Amino acid sequence: MDNLGGMSVAAEMTSIEPRIAELIRHSMALRAGDSVADACADVLDDVLDQALTSSEGGKRLRARLALAAFDQATHGRASDEERAGMLDLACAIEVFQTAALVHDDIIDESDLRRGKPSAHRALATATHSNAIGRGLGIMLGDLLATASVGIADNASRRLASSDGIVAAFLNMHKEVEVGQVLDLAVELAPLDDPDTLASASLNVFRWKTASYTTIAPIELALLAAGGDPDESRRAALAIGRPLGLAFQLADDLLDVVGSSRHTGKPVGGDIREGKRTVLLADAIAMASPTERGELVNAFSAPARDEDQVRRIIGLFESTGAVACSRERIASLWEEARAAMDERCGSDAPEDRTFVEACARFVPLA
Amino acid sequence: MDNLGGMSVAAEMTSIEPRIAELIRHSMALRAGDSVADACADVLDDVLDQALTSSEGGKRLRARLALAAFDQATHGRASDEERAGMLDLACAIEVFQTAALVHDDIIDESDLRRGKPSAHRALATATHSNAIGRGLGIMLGDLLATASVGIADNASRRLASSDGIVAAFLNMHKEVEVGQVLDLAVELAPLDDPDTLASASLNVFRWKTASYTTIAPIELALLAAGGDPDESRRAALAIGRPLGLAFQLADDLLDVVGSSRHTGKPVGGDIREGKRTVLLADAIAMASPTERGELVNAFSAPARDEDQVRRIIGLFESTGAVACSRERIASLWEEARAAMDERCGSDAPEDRTFVEACARFVPLA
Repeated sequence: MDNLGGMSVAAEMTSIEPRIAELIRHSMALRAGDSVADACADVLDDVLDQALTSSEGGKRLRARLALAAFDQATHGRASDEERAGMLDLACAIEVFQTAALVHDDIIDESDLRRGKPSAHRALATATHSNAIGRGLGIMLGDLLATASVGIADNASRRLASSDGIVAAFLNMHKEVEVGQVLDLAVELAPLDDPDTLASASLNVFRWKTASYTTIAPIELALLAAGGDPDESRRAALAIGRPLGLAFQLADDLLDVVGSSRHTGKPVGGDIREGKRTVLLADAIAMASPTERGELVNAFSAPARDEDQVRRIIGLFESTGAVACSRERIASLWEEARAAMDERCGSDAPEDRTFVEACARFVPLA
Repeated sequence: MDNLGGMSVAAEMTSIEPRIAELIRHSMALRAGDSVADACADVLDDVLDQALTSSEGGKRLRARLALAAFDQATHGRASDEERAGMLDLACAIEVFQTAALVHDDIIDESDLRRGKPSAHRALATATHSNAIGRGLGIMLGDLLATASVGIADNASRRLASSDGIVAAFLNMHKEVEVGQVLDLAVELAPLDDPDTLASASLNVFRWKTASYTTIAPIELALLAAGGDPDESRRAALAIGRPLGLAFQLADDLLDVVGSSRHTGKPVGGDIREGKRTVLLADAIAMASPTERGELVNAFSAPARDEDQVRRIIGLFESTGAVACSRERIASLWEEARAAMDERCGSDAPEDRTFVEACARFVPLA
């Protein structure tokens, strides 16, 4: 049975999902007495609607990890008020994710997100202008980022221990922003040095993904449970860093071996976009000279057609890059598992639930 | 003599300017033990350098208003530690302004800011890619916005009264973001109803400019001085709303009657960009039918050439729109002045300094 401090996953999702919408609506509402000109009200409403639409449909892995880590750290003995505060803090992480994805989709010029039009595309359609849609998308990301900090700040007041929570939440923002900068920098790196490319890609995963996917949910939960800041950070890094890297490697692998139904994205999307991944680096490292030339040429070109995408997926398999990613994932999961065992080796239900919440990030392990 | 709680403006600038750079450097630094891959380090350095470059050269009117409001509210009797906290809070407002301008320039596709290349243009030059420069610019804005909240959060801990400061700071973020949305919405409004256009433009000024230029600096200073939240908000709105509107009207007027040397922007820049301003609305309202047709056509077109810009500046003068803006500014300044008198009618130096700090926003009054 899948329990979270006595609460089933279905029940947990039932509390997370509507609370996110409620918190966004509350954060975005204007104060009593404030008003906007009639001529502009419709566009503002479009942006607020899109804030809710963009927030829907996540698996809430991050919120569920944070709640499981809190229950583990408090042995399920927190008061209802404190657990309500922790729920809001967990929702704040999800709201921040939406903010980051809205900007990410503008930067990558992605038209789809979770199977729906991306936020800036939807706003371009609503306003009949690509330029205005993009501008509104930048502001929607900013509004959601601001809202996420406000939700975390309010949540921290409901917790017995609020020290350092806003600072840790802002550090999460910063790490993701640094990660996005590094991700753009990798696009400029030469392709002829696969070892450098692999280590740079893993470094991007640490900053852009592990930061808010696994490290911050654990760190914030431990702080909320009254943990010492340095100790909370250390434990969050020990478990969250390898777990977050494994999660991103598995996600990149799904792009190649998964199905569109599974990820909400068409297979080979990363290849089509020319994304520089660990898979690509491993394939270049293990390819024959002819295959290597083919890969480097294909990823140096401005675009890749469907035949090339299929051929590259084949090369990722035949060179052994897919197998190599599976090994990397297994080894990182072992590292995370060892750090978990150090923290919670018991048979207590909160301990098992925490390990299960972590395992959800690595379906391929 | 121009004094701020006994400190001259020159001395005040000497403390604000380097402190902003110091706070940005500290906020952007990675934690001990953290590192980024060598292959990406140069691009991250470019972004951090640009964070400092983009922050330079402001007149610091907002920081100086916040400090003057704090000195007025504390009668210059705050401890050194508290005033140091207030200085950092004032700097946080300036850092947030830079964040907002970086995104604003991306949305408006502006190449210049304060006479230098705008941030995303400078980053495009550094990376030889417009797309990557724009992506890095979005992230630079995000990083500076995150940094500004962290600086405000840290500053609040140095103040005797820290309650509500982070919440008020985040509300300022939100108001500016809403204002930017409204500003984009005005671009979609029809030009044939000048009254609606004028009131919508003034409403944009309330959200996009007055919010962080005059309302928040006063509100944050009063909170920092231990003021009641509702009373601080009321006083900040009473003075800051009309003052901020007058400031933006004066700024738009300078675009028409000013010089490039004065504003760092070429004269007529707003007209060239097709910006929908109160000046334009007043000109359309007061123009003859022929002139009105000419204005509506010119602002409905995708671009305006230099002859048209000159001709439109002429129409802004001849229709009386320029004179009308001067009257609007004078009347708003009177409204702000009356609210100031209610708060600080005495001859005490802190009171005079506060009024002087307010007057700097409206050089044309």
